[in-house]
Amino acid sequence: MSVMRAVEGLPYPVVFSDDAPVDVTRLIAGCASNAVVVADEAVAARANEIAAHLSERGVEAGPVAAIAGGEESKRWESVAAIHDALARRYAERSWIVVAVGGGMLTDVAGFAAATYMRGLRWLAVPTTPVGMADAAVGGKTAINHALGKNLIGVYWDPVAVVADVAALATVPRRSFADGIAEMAKAAIVGDNSLLDELGTLPRLPDDAARWVPLLARAAAVKAHIVATDPREQGRRAELNLGHTVGHALEKASAYRVSHGEAVALGLRAAGTLAHTVTGFSLEEHRRILAVLERHGLPVYDPAIDVETCLAAMQVDKKRRDGSLRFVLPIRVGEVVWGHEVSPEAVRGAVQMLRRPPADGW
Amino acid sequence: MSVMRAVEGLPYPVVFSDDAPVDVTRLIAGCASNAVVVADEAVAARANEIAAHLSERGVEAGPVAAIAGGEESKRWESVAAIHDALARRYAERSWIVVAVGGGMLTDVAGFAAATYMRGLRWLAVPTTPVGMADAAVGGKTAINHALGKNLIGVYWDPVAVVADVAALATVPRRSFADGIAEMAKAAIVGDNSLLDELGTLPRLPDDAARWVPLLARAAAVKAHIVATDPREQGRRAELNLGHTVGHALEKASAYRVSHGEAVALGLRAAGTLAHTVTGFSLEEHRRILAVLERHGLPVYDPAIDVETCLAAMQVDKKRRDGSLRFVLPIRVGEVVWGHEVSPEAVRGAVQMLRRPPADGW
Repeated sequence: MSVMRAVEGLPYPVVFSDDAPVDVTRLIAGCASNAVVVADEAVAARANEIAAHLSERGVEAGPVAAIAGGEESKRWESVAAIHDALARRYAERSWIVVAVGGGMLTDVAGFAAATYMRGLRWLAVPTTPVGMADAAVGGKTAINHALGKNLIGVYWDPVAVVADVAALATVPRRSFADGIAEMAKAAIVGDNSLLDELGTLPRLPDDAARWVPLLARAAAVKAHIVATDPREQGRRAELNLGHTVGHALEKASAYRVSHGEAVALGLRAAGTLAHTVTGFSLEEHRRILAVLERHGLPVYDPAIDVETCLAAMQVDKKRRDGSLRFVLPIRVGEVVWGHEVSPEAVRGAVQMLRRPPADGW
Repeated sequence: MSVMRAVEGLPYPVVFSDDAPVDVTRLIAGCASNAVVVADEAVAARANEIAAHLSERGVEAGPVAAIAGGEESKRWESVAAIHDALARRYAERSWIVVAVGGGMLTDVAGFAAATYMRGLRWLAVPTTPVGMADAAVGGKTAINHALGKNLIGVYWDPVAVVADVAALATVPRRSFADGIAEMAKAAIVGDNSLLDELGTLPRLPDDAARWVPLLARAAAVKAHIVATDPREQGRRAELNLGHTVGHALEKASAYRVSHGEAVALGLRAAGTLAHTVTGFSLEEHRRILAVLERHGLPVYDPAIDVETCLAAMQVDKKRRDGSLRFVLPIRVGEVVWGHEVSPEAVRGAVQMLRRPPADGW
């Protein structure tokens, strides 16, 4: 039994697998004769195992196309490199792209698949907690633009998501913490007791398998919301909790601040903004900050340049009629979305992020 | 009455207008508060008129983003330039992109709209016969890849197509002939008497308005087929008649051969291949060649490099299981699609294109 857990609700299977080469092959064999495997170079060895298994079972996989890791790879040149690999192999419309890596890689490879011959099928194999809990689920693909993170992209659902649990063992600590930030976000959006679970797990995850149930619960929060609003006409915006400030912090820091670190800071800012708007309580806010800090995530950063961050927010995708819209917690497990917040309040919340929480906020 | 003719069948309006600024504004006002007008620089003045009219009627249009004309602009750098223009104006998801120009421009601007914030709405304003009869209708967007024309792109329907009939007066003769090649293609695919009409119109179109009914009939052939198969799961492939060889000739000539010239040559090759497969008659073949030659389109080209052309065909989007699939005429007005043709037959048909028709073929 290689599938440890399945996440329900989406029109395609989302599974956590302890034998990804087998499960990927099982899902592809019979529906495609050829695959192009694209991988973050950090997991190129694992991608080679998947490609080898595919080829053994009659799905010709050819060489793995490796993309350098890191947020700076999230640009057109990486997409074009994948297109080149497809064209060199004379890929046809019936072929499938297999994307092995973290959130950067699945976002980029999904975008490349979506834009080759007006759309090849693709299968996501997230190898990091961020990818498993968030990025690979929901059909958003993207690259960055100089003026905004994930500004360029399309919706393009994968045919399946196979989270490669074995790959978690090799994930660097900082990348693991990034995933915990997304899991905390999911908990605040829609799973109150998940936050408690995150607060009780050991700081240094000794056994990746222990995280699988929590990663799956975070993915389930996302899957449930995406299923009700796949193209973000409304409620899907809830999943951007902490991300309006978070994306701006990432970009303003030239991606020195990691995605998860930025989201952690963004979650604090959202809590601060929520207090006066939704009556979000100090007690709930402290619960969140405690979980983030337990897992080594920042809740303040003196290096934040407030003006650069505010400017970066001006190209946020959730902007409407010139105003920024925020997702704000009501309590852990329930949020409101689309809330207009005054520029002064936003500035105040970002300024506060430069200092440790005072009076709990 | 600014709408001279409307093409039915698609889920969005397709109209031929003799006052495009008015009709574009009528369609946008009330559903978008802001527009970004993108134009081929050859029609930048016309685009400015459209932008000015939009702004007068409360749709803030800002400056026109101009793209250099020509097939070489059909690349990512042009898409990125449009994205930059959108980001500089802090475009929001509710904004609309208005694409003014020929097939190159609407393909590129549609792709830029489709990939900004995972999809902005767009409105196509074709200004050339190719754009009106073919490119702007049907929701295909694209840029070229070094290994294949239109290899990169997505499906993204415009909210409307407003053919700018007034712009036809300024279309260069060669560009007009390109449109006639597409109209001949449409006739062969699904409108027998349209071919006769094309054969009776004067060689030098003195009055652009005379062409409107024929352009609309060609667009109607396309609209009808696209409506039954919007994502080219099957029958839409019929519209690629003459384009498998045509795209390869364009690319192999480094786009020295124009799209319409390449399609004219491709139509001849399709007729030649069809004879033995579908029993396509010499009489029908000669009807087609006569129309093409009447309007100054080539039916042979001694400069064709057969091997380069055959190599270029290997990345054709219609390739399946390693074989090239062709659309072949049965008679004018009826074609079959998905026909596998032997490599030897393809080579023979391309070789024949180097010489004038002998024995009528």
